[in-house]
Amino acid sequence: MNTAMTFEEKIRDVKAAVGRVRTLLESRPFDSVYFVACGGSRATMYPGKYILERETSKITADNFTAREFVLAPPARFSERSIVVLNSYSGTTAETVAALRLAKDRGARTVAFTMWPDRAIGEADEVIFYEDEPSNPPPNFLTIFPAVYQVVFTILDVVEGTGWLPPVTQALEQLDGIYARERAKREQELRAFAEQYWQEPIFYTTGAGLDYQMCYIMTVCILLEAQWIHSASFHAGEFFHGPFEVVDENTPYFVTLGLDETRPMEERALEFLLRTSRKVFAVDARDFDLSGMEPRVRKWIAPVVLNRVLQMYGEALALRRAHPLSIRRYMGKMSY
Amino acid sequence: MNTAMTFEEKIRDVKAAVGRVRTLLESRPFDSVYFVACGGSRATMYPGKYILERETSKITADNFTAREFVLAPPARFSERSIVVLNSYSGTTAETVAALRLAKDRGARTVAFTMWPDRAIGEADEVIFYEDEPSNPPPNFLTIFPAVYQVVFTILDVVEGTGWLPPVTQALEQLDGIYARERAKREQELRAFAEQYWQEPIFYTTGAGLDYQMCYIMTVCILLEAQWIHSASFHAGEFFHGPFEVVDENTPYFVTLGLDETRPMEERALEFLLRTSRKVFAVDARDFDLSGMEPRVRKWIAPVVLNRVLQMYGEALALRRAHPLSIRRYMGKMSY
Repeated sequence: MNTAMTFEEKIRDVKAAVGRVRTLLESRPFDSVYFVACGGSRATMYPGKYILERETSKITADNFTAREFVLAPPARFSERSIVVLNSYSGTTAETVAALRLAKDRGARTVAFTMWPDRAIGEADEVIFYEDEPSNPPPNFLTIFPAVYQVVFTILDVVEGTGWLPPVTQALEQLDGIYARERAKREQELRAFAEQYWQEPIFYTTGAGLDYQMCYIMTVCILLEAQWIHSASFHAGEFFHGPFEVVDENTPYFVTLGLDETRPMEERALEFLLRTSRKVFAVDARDFDLSGMEPRVRKWIAPVVLNRVLQMYGEALALRRAHPLSIRRYMGKMSY
Repeated sequence: MNTAMTFEEKIRDVKAAVGRVRTLLESRPFDSVYFVACGGSRATMYPGKYILERETSKITADNFTAREFVLAPPARFSERSIVVLNSYSGTTAETVAALRLAKDRGARTVAFTMWPDRAIGEADEVIFYEDEPSNPPPNFLTIFPAVYQVVFTILDVVEGTGWLPPVTQALEQLDGIYARERAKREQELRAFAEQYWQEPIFYTTGAGLDYQMCYIMTVCILLEAQWIHSASFHAGEFFHGPFEVVDENTPYFVTLGLDETRPMEERALEFLLRTSRKVFAVDARDFDLSGMEPRVRKWIAPVVLNRVLQMYGEALALRRAHPLSIRRYMGKMSY
């Protein structure tokens, strides 16, 4: 990606790449899609498994941490598979190894990356995304819109459903939605940070796609960037073990979405409000998604939830004077 | 299950039930198997997804927390599906709802339970298991052997592989293996409890099937039965976020298995031994599985790991004077 390009030119390039992914998918039949990456990059692609699994029975979809995919691949993985990878740095060893295995097996490959000229760029099609705090791009150029465009392109190719246009239209609205969420939460963000900045542990829970947004909050923000102990549990599992540790001083983030799995989240929240004084809920019903086609809202809500959770992470980081970019091991020692 | 029956009679009954499951599977073709339950009961059936997914491409297999399966079922779920359920109490509301949905859709159903005369007993075939601390049954009568017999029966029906006899022979050896593991660890269990009984948090990590054994340790033992904060991470995800929270005082359980995913576990262990003074590893290479056919050992090792992890949980419970049976919410309030 030429860094001298304007955002508008980059957006045109991303849309052109999504078009080439459609051509790649249409070139011959496929029966399975594997979304393969590590950590937050893996969780960001979980919508691929979740949405395809619910919207089509014609193909299978799964989500793997990259090295498990390489060391113990599924028997169904073949030249009839599509392998979708995601490596922010373009060089994540496990994800690059998965790409090479996929190419050896004759599978078609699509990769998301910030750095298309690095190893991950050897995929059949590469979709560029940005995540540059010093020069923030339009949200349409970040990872979730890239993932969603590919996921709904796959669905459209398989089912002829025409999801991509309304999904793209919804994704183009994210800048405005995020700005409004930040503005209306300004006071709440400060109050949240003031209440919680000294907590040594913070749990997260959600259901459906939200569960993986909680995982991203736990793994990328709390553990990796803040060194705060954390665990994320699926809200459907919460009452089968995890809830017994809760007392009035146990901090818990709860997400509430717009899809069919919301009752699990409401049940967890209701219990937590009775048992802990430190419960913080983010509810997608508070987001203004009115400019989107109704059928896409439940799928876009988790993306907005992810960004709003991140705002609370940023508020914590500021109050704790612990920048989100500090690492003690990553890039500092070999492992 | 008649409580006046001897263990030998019960074992005969379980084997007869497994035979009826084979007949049920052979009655007409199926294309998918869903393992559906909650918490530890769900994780105990994870070998169903993991093993079938790696040993056959002829059917698909997945593992769901029960209420998500009911509220947002996969599109592939149909009358051509087998739904395998697990409810210790026989009345778990989410799992019973999944059974009813499966029957409504015309899927064939198999259920594991302690209480076959309760709601879950309406499944097409029911396999009884025991978990009675006051009168411990042979391990062959507990849940993992029941799950494994069904999983390998499915595989044998689909692929004609003949796994069930060597797997059954291996499962019948568990009593001896557990007794030897307990005896040789007697001092270590006490030393472990003495070192760790005051820790407020304990992480677990493993890969492949072991990851779900770590989940069971985290959810059923540490959180539910000991009220110790805990999170379990896949060893392949460990270096992509979770490891940044580790300092020299962070307690971590690491499992090491015998299958292809072991290198991920070894890498996590090596890092942890360099960064924390509180790392405790359980290595399946220390188990004597020599009486089993070589090809089944990697699949049986996680079952033994589960039992050995539980021994450390029991040792902690004893030292903390916090019996594993104490609950603060389950059965004490409605939620």
